[in-house]
Amino acid sequence: MGRFSIEVRVMPRPALLDPQGQAVERALGALGFPAVSGVRVGKALTLELDRADRAQAERDARAMCERLLANPVTEDFTLSVKAVG
Amino acid sequence: MGRFSIEVRVMPRPALLDPQGQAVERALGALGFPAVSGVRVGKALTLELDRADRAQAERDARAMCERLLANPVTEDFTLSVKAVG
Repeated sequence: MGRFSIEVRVMPRPALLDPQGQAVERALGALGFPAVSGVRVGKALTLELDRADRAQAERDARAMCERLLANPVTEDFTLSVKAVG
Repeated sequence: MGRFSIEVRVMPRPALLDPQGQAVERALGALGFPAVSGVRVGKALTLELDRADRAQAERDARAMCERLLANPVTEDFTLSVKAVG
């Protein structure tokens, strides 16, 4: 059994409007950062997972994203899996 | 002038309670993932920035985090800066 540290990034799909990103972009412009474009806002999650090996940890993390953490219609996710202590 | 792609991750500070992370952890347990611990939920942002060079792009991105994207009392941020097209 090993312990794995998982980082998940969940972002709105590129084809979709991202109202939160647009609001941040406007706010950055108002603060004096006009050279900013294409702001997208998503979720970042970190968690730890006890699993037999890295492949199983990655499989479980992927299942978590598909079943709970990301909306399969509107969001894409990326995973990073690192062994810890 | 170059264009830089910035990835920002904003997470609740380790010392602080993260109620959203706790809710996700309970939900994952209920879905059949009991080996999960330490779930933390933060924000992931991506944006593009037109700047003279990478150092200036990183300085601006850091200023954006300090002034708008992250709460300096409760959140930490990490940045990644990549040159694009």
